[in-house]
Amino acid sequence: MKIPVVRKVLEVNETMAEQNKKLFDRHRVLVLNLMSSPGAGKTALLERTLSDLGTEMNMAVIEGDVQTTNDAQRIAATGVPVVQINTDQACHLDSSMVQEALGQLDLEGLDVLFIENVGNLVCPAAFDLGEDLKITLLSVPEGDDKPLKYPSMFVRSQLMILNKLDLLPYLEFSLVQATQGAQTVNPDLEVISVSARTGENLEAWYEWLRSRLKTKRKA
Amino acid sequence: MKIPVVRKVLEVNETMAEQNKKLFDRHRVLVLNLMSSPGAGKTALLERTLSDLGTEMNMAVIEGDVQTTNDAQRIAATGVPVVQINTDQACHLDSSMVQEALGQLDLEGLDVLFIENVGNLVCPAAFDLGEDLKITLLSVPEGDDKPLKYPSMFVRSQLMILNKLDLLPYLEFSLVQATQGAQTVNPDLEVISVSARTGENLEAWYEWLRSRLKTKRKA
Repeated sequence: MKIPVVRKVLEVNETMAEQNKKLFDRHRVLVLNLMSSPGAGKTALLERTLSDLGTEMNMAVIEGDVQTTNDAQRIAATGVPVVQINTDQACHLDSSMVQEALGQLDLEGLDVLFIENVGNLVCPAAFDLGEDLKITLLSVPEGDDKPLKYPSMFVRSQLMILNKLDLLPYLEFSLVQATQGAQTVNPDLEVISVSARTGENLEAWYEWLRSRLKTKRKA
Repeated sequence: MKIPVVRKVLEVNETMAEQNKKLFDRHRVLVLNLMSSPGAGKTALLERTLSDLGTEMNMAVIEGDVQTTNDAQRIAATGVPVVQINTDQACHLDSSMVQEALGQLDLEGLDVLFIENVGNLVCPAAFDLGEDLKITLLSVPEGDDKPLKYPSMFVRSQLMILNKLDLLPYLEFSLVQATQGAQTVNPDLEVISVSARTGENLEAWYEWLRSRLKTKRKA
């Protein structure tokens, strides 16, 4: 009895994700679904990105959290439009939540919409939101073994951002091991290593973003 | 339609959790459910605990992971009995999985059974396994805001272990903030700060464990 219902939930989610996707495509907005464990640095990466690229592209953010509007407040401080979704007990965003949030957001003239998912390295992978691309952040303190232990997120993502490079000197973490693990489960996965805190190598991430935005505009 | 089914799942889980609990009580085994985000240091804490207290108490471990037997291998290296549960897509252990694992484990003469849950700061909270106590680990790199953002785990736990104290000099993390946040959502929550890597303050954790074992034996 359990499995059919789960499938039904996923089917409903797919339908609404397609509706979201059509809306995004009509407005030519590049939509990125950011996923990771709690505390891997999704919000910190967004804060840097929004202020560094603020004059270059028009961006907005949908914030997903179990509770609180703390992250939305951090994003709002950068001057960018932000909508908060509180999922209460749910361990991931779904496409209906995003659809509801879109009612509060003007897509006209927008270049990039970031959707920051609930901090969770398991659940968000199964739920498309209508996004163009999925990005999984992995941070150095979490350990280089995580892509093999939690493969789904890495399988379904196009980009892995390895964050908190500034902590490498204090931890046993192999960039090679983490990258190999991730590319074992997903050979097409791109990898960019950064420190959102110090700004190290963020330019590589910005270049990736610019190139994806260009592709979206041409589509 | 969704909610009743979820309730049914939780009801079935409760029934089997009670069966597990009876079995644990009959053998007077203290059972601890360890929960946290991926990479917070559950396995590292267990490794230290199993080798430091190995002559003092008889311990065993049930390892929950989405994929791989990496953690179970690390535990097995300490010489302690270990059973691996691979949950595949599921983001948490449930009481039926634990019941199945118990078929592979001799409870006779055991003092403490650790159940290491899937790395996830949301899902495991809702599923009792028949354990005596729930412990949530929070590690310094995750950020001191996490108890307020992911309250359920902290609400349902009796102890929070703040791990990776050795990284405090390199991060902005307030022990006071993290503790206050956790005790705001659960005023009865006990807090012990440690570094499983350097061994700092592990004696406080061992004392807690000894005292809980004593209580269990008297029950």
